[in-house]
Amino acid sequence: MSTTGLREYLDGPHKAARDVVRDGLAEHADLLNAGLTLSRDEYRDKVLEMLQQITADGHTGRGFPKEFGGQGDLGGFIAGFETLAFGDLSLMVKAGVQFGLFAGAILHLGTTRHHEEYLTDAINGRLLGCFAMTETGHGSNVQALGTTATYDAATDEFVIHTPHPAARKDYIGNAARHGRMAAVFAQLVVGGQTHGVHCLLVPIRSLNGEVLPGVTVTDCGPKLGLNGVDNGRIVFDQVRVPRTALLDRYAQVDAEGTYTSEIENPDRRFFTMLGTLVQGRVSVGGAAINASKVALTIAIRYADQRRQFGAPGTAEEALLLDYRMHQRRLLPLLARTYALHFAQAELVAEFVRIFGGEGLSDADEHDRRALEAQAAGTKVLGTWHATETIQLCREACGGAGYLAENRLAALKADTDVFTTFEGDNTVLLQLVAKGLLTGYRESFGKLDPLGTARFIAAQAVEIAVEKTALRAVAERLRDVVPNRNDKADPDAGLRDDAYHCGMVRFREEHLLAGVARRLKAGIDAGDDAFDVFNRCQDHVIAAGRAHVDRVVLEAFLAAVQVAPEGSVRDRLKDLYDLHALATIEGERAWYIEHGRLSGARSKAITALVNELCALVRPHATELVDAFGVPGAAVDVPMVVPSQHE
Amino acid sequence: MSTTGLREYLDGPHKAARDVVRDGLAEHADLLNAGLTLSRDEYRDKVLEMLQQITADGHTGRGFPKEFGGQGDLGGFIAGFETLAFGDLSLMVKAGVQFGLFAGAILHLGTTRHHEEYLTDAINGRLLGCFAMTETGHGSNVQALGTTATYDAATDEFVIHTPHPAARKDYIGNAARHGRMAAVFAQLVVGGQTHGVHCLLVPIRSLNGEVLPGVTVTDCGPKLGLNGVDNGRIVFDQVRVPRTALLDRYAQVDAEGTYTSEIENPDRRFFTMLGTLVQGRVSVGGAAINASKVALTIAIRYADQRRQFGAPGTAEEALLLDYRMHQRRLLPLLARTYALHFAQAELVAEFVRIFGGEGLSDADEHDRRALEAQAAGTKVLGTWHATETIQLCREACGGAGYLAENRLAALKADTDVFTTFEGDNTVLLQLVAKGLLTGYRESFGKLDPLGTARFIAAQAVEIAVEKTALRAVAERLRDVVPNRNDKADPDAGLRDDAYHCGMVRFREEHLLAGVARRLKAGIDAGDDAFDVFNRCQDHVIAAGRAHVDRVVLEAFLAAVQVAPEGSVRDRLKDLYDLHALATIEGERAWYIEHGRLSGARSKAITALVNELCALVRPHATELVDAFGVPGAAVDVPMVVPSQHE
Repeated sequence: MSTTGLREYLDGPHKAARDVVRDGLAEHADLLNAGLTLSRDEYRDKVLEMLQQITADGHTGRGFPKEFGGQGDLGGFIAGFETLAFGDLSLMVKAGVQFGLFAGAILHLGTTRHHEEYLTDAINGRLLGCFAMTETGHGSNVQALGTTATYDAATDEFVIHTPHPAARKDYIGNAARHGRMAAVFAQLVVGGQTHGVHCLLVPIRSLNGEVLPGVTVTDCGPKLGLNGVDNGRIVFDQVRVPRTALLDRYAQVDAEGTYTSEIENPDRRFFTMLGTLVQGRVSVGGAAINASKVALTIAIRYADQRRQFGAPGTAEEALLLDYRMHQRRLLPLLARTYALHFAQAELVAEFVRIFGGEGLSDADEHDRRALEAQAAGTKVLGTWHATETIQLCREACGGAGYLAENRLAALKADTDVFTTFEGDNTVLLQLVAKGLLTGYRESFGKLDPLGTARFIAAQAVEIAVEKTALRAVAERLRDVVPNRNDKADPDAGLRDDAYHCGMVRFREEHLLAGVARRLKAGIDAGDDAFDVFNRCQDHVIAAGRAHVDRVVLEAFLAAVQVAPEGSVRDRLKDLYDLHALATIEGERAWYIEHGRLSGARSKAITALVNELCALVRPHATELVDAFGVPGAAVDVPMVVPSQHE
Repeated sequence: MSTTGLREYLDGPHKAARDVVRDGLAEHADLLNAGLTLSRDEYRDKVLEMLQQITADGHTGRGFPKEFGGQGDLGGFIAGFETLAFGDLSLMVKAGVQFGLFAGAILHLGTTRHHEEYLTDAINGRLLGCFAMTETGHGSNVQALGTTATYDAATDEFVIHTPHPAARKDYIGNAARHGRMAAVFAQLVVGGQTHGVHCLLVPIRSLNGEVLPGVTVTDCGPKLGLNGVDNGRIVFDQVRVPRTALLDRYAQVDAEGTYTSEIENPDRRFFTMLGTLVQGRVSVGGAAINASKVALTIAIRYADQRRQFGAPGTAEEALLLDYRMHQRRLLPLLARTYALHFAQAELVAEFVRIFGGEGLSDADEHDRRALEAQAAGTKVLGTWHATETIQLCREACGGAGYLAENRLAALKADTDVFTTFEGDNTVLLQLVAKGLLTGYRESFGKLDPLGTARFIAAQAVEIAVEKTALRAVAERLRDVVPNRNDKADPDAGLRDDAYHCGMVRFREEHLLAGVARRLKAGIDAGDDAFDVFNRCQDHVIAAGRAHVDRVVLEAFLAAVQVAPEGSVRDRLKDLYDLHALATIEGERAWYIEHGRLSGARSKAITALVNELCALVRPHATELVDAFGVPGAAVDVPMVVPSQHE
């Protein structure tokens, strides 16, 4: 097989941007050891040095408007950021904080004066900044933040204040050591009235690095991973900033203390502001998927070299990758990595369509909400996938996988928090499900259970209508796909795309309808709204997950269908089948419970997954080579022993 | 509920030994921060200092014969070792290497002269030693080690040699910095004939710490975790030791170069020698289970304090632990931790029965083989459980869980290798399954696939007989337990012990019979033995796992039945039901596929697991308090915020 052809297809439209970052990583491969050899503060400073380096290379400004030194290439920017995950992940996260979150907040929440004053410096890395949203007391529930920004008309200033210990800003990247300014999310209080969470630019350090009066910064100390990022805590004691520090694209305060916003509903205003920051979730998901590629490259190459046990009397022991269990553990994860790669590419294309182009575009609100759900879902699956995959890769490499020199340790430790940051995965899946249930339409309910439950009750009639339509779909499927009368040939049609898509779609729609029914029944019975929601929280999350599984599967299928004919498409089709059937196999209990699979057909699927693993196995090394991870990131001693003797 | 009563019941017969270690950990709590504040070498030296301290406290010699300074209390020794897992895990592992593996090899594989010369010093920590078994090229397949020990009759010496790079000893604890002697496993060559792997004592450092001539030691460098243990690599270049260096309990070489052993079959000799080292696996499993207790204590206390979201209009947000998803994620793991605790207690009791008492006992070989399988199985489940539980606890504590100060990071990193060391888990499960298939009886097949396959073919007739018996059992179960005709009341009997036990036993026996049938069919068809085995490797592993699941469930049930009446037994019964039903739920696809569950009953089980979570929830904090983890290990800033402000 031509690895080049497959790699080009994977790299897609942003190949050039990816290659720039690959070259940079290859050139500065020494950073990969920095976390092992330097003290924590030295490591942080080294990461900062590398950040300035990649900034000089011109990559990091790629996504910003040309007038501020950028290149207006949002897709290339995201692709390049994802590619940073092939290298040191502290560098990637620090770049994400500086260019994605901090500069992104200025770009999306600020107006011309903020852009002109700060954007060029932020993009060039001269103005290092923090994204001070999360507090000790509130992470996922951002609307309940405690920090206040109170307007003082007498001086035309906002007073930034931390009213109690739980309201201190926590886990803030760039805070402990390098940040000079923070984009602070706080409850905006004007004329005694609270208008909800808004964002303001607050200087925290002087030009020579001293923490400013009224600001207290402490270090979060060592972490499980990402120790090259200087996470810290910030407490504000009546810190004054001019009125113009408010990033005022969606809400303005004039000198007289009059608050205005074109979005009247406070919830809707809040979610609109937050929605502009979707790039963070898009980026984290992509980074997690790429970190999985690094781990799989290492573990699959190792398994294709390492021999252990095997039939006695033969000259050599057997390769690990020839064992069925080893194939079973690694190859479905390889297939899912491909699936997620294409789902991420689809997400990035949609993100570029909505946010890309010259300057800022005001895309249709409905599309934005759909994009947010897609970004949340891909982030959830991508990050859980990374945790699972890197863990299994570590175990599949035994004791050697535990040594830092073989890089799986750092991958595991550094990516672990991805499931939590940019939104906890279980919270995000509820967001996805809620989006599906309400369709958002013109109403913006809160993320809280009561709002959801009430809203859903109101929607129940419409959903009942959809259910009728759904039933027709289900009946049609039942005719097309043998499942009850499959005893004669339980294998029939198992590699048929329409079968896979029908199954995952049935699951999504059935779960969704079930959630709506349960919520409505509870509300109708007059039960406490929190209890009603809580009783079906597991169903809500399962419905969200089922939706994302379907989206990912369809993205993979679409990518196979337009892939170059020949070996590229053939290889992808095998991987797609493996992914589709492993996905169905993973939920086979549910399918059987709901009459969509017979026991015999379920067993046939398991047998076919085994066969597909064997079919993919001879190409496994080429399939990881096609990811194009730079050599330094994967040429570890256990794979290249000569480095080592 | 009385936490004290439950804690005493959990501590069982070795309460005193556990409390001694608890007190020591509380006294030396500063070690918990050593890994965060010291350089790697300083941390290693600090761990050594603590090792000498706990040795002085008298704990570490507890399991050795009184004549060498021990206390002859094997059960207390293991219980104390497990309790070390409540503290710094590097200390625990270093103690395991020194007192379990190194001193244990001398005790079990050596004879009087070795005991008299070395044992007291080893127990007192004056003679620090390594257990040099694993090589770069061979970990799980110990029989294929490359290091040689060749007898030179001219000088009455053995020559220890590393013939090629892959034969270097690797990942050896105590090697990089502190060890003075190594128990080296090597192919014994006498008079040109190889007799398989034996163990010899080889000095590697002088009294003042210099590496001896012919020995090359290198450092394995930083690891994912356990960085307080000085793992290293050892290469031998024709190193000479006297003939008496051979630990000669099971095989002797006389001055003329005559090799003798009371065990003629080399495979059987090898497995007998290895079998005496079962204590390592017993200990690792127990340590993993106790590490899970620490993580759960932290995560459940946090979830019972931390509020986020909740119904608006109410005064407070909701506690995390009141959310169904949070209960679903944590409480079945809490129940499984209890189950494993009792399974481990049962294993230790059996271990003491066979290996305990004054001096060495020669227990019945059949019992020893059964003990080895039980130890392997408990180690596998306990260590995978730890990896899964600590991961989920980390995620359940969000960003705070990622900070080193909250200890989940160290628990995760340090325990991760437990699934790999003392035998890779997937290899061990195959060992368990093989033991069940062959019953071992008088024959000792190799661990390799061919041996297994051949042996199993020979046993097929007997298994067929057993299958007939099994069918009768299955029929009987079907009558007792409603499963096909359960539509009228799918909940009936779900909390009945006999139902749980019948289900897990059916699964075990069905899987086992299936493996035997597949192996026999393949062999009968004349297929390549490796292929035959490999094709059903996933079934073999599932059968091993099903066996251990059953053993663990029955151990938990037995412990409930003899627990003190009243609140202790009531709490344990709820946890037992939760564990039993969550176990069945986890395999519900298989049960449905095999006609043991209807879809309706399967859904009823899921609903009941939810209910049981809600039933356990009010007692959750007390249930973790009963583990008796010393305060310093769990009073982390996120749980005790005042430490921190």
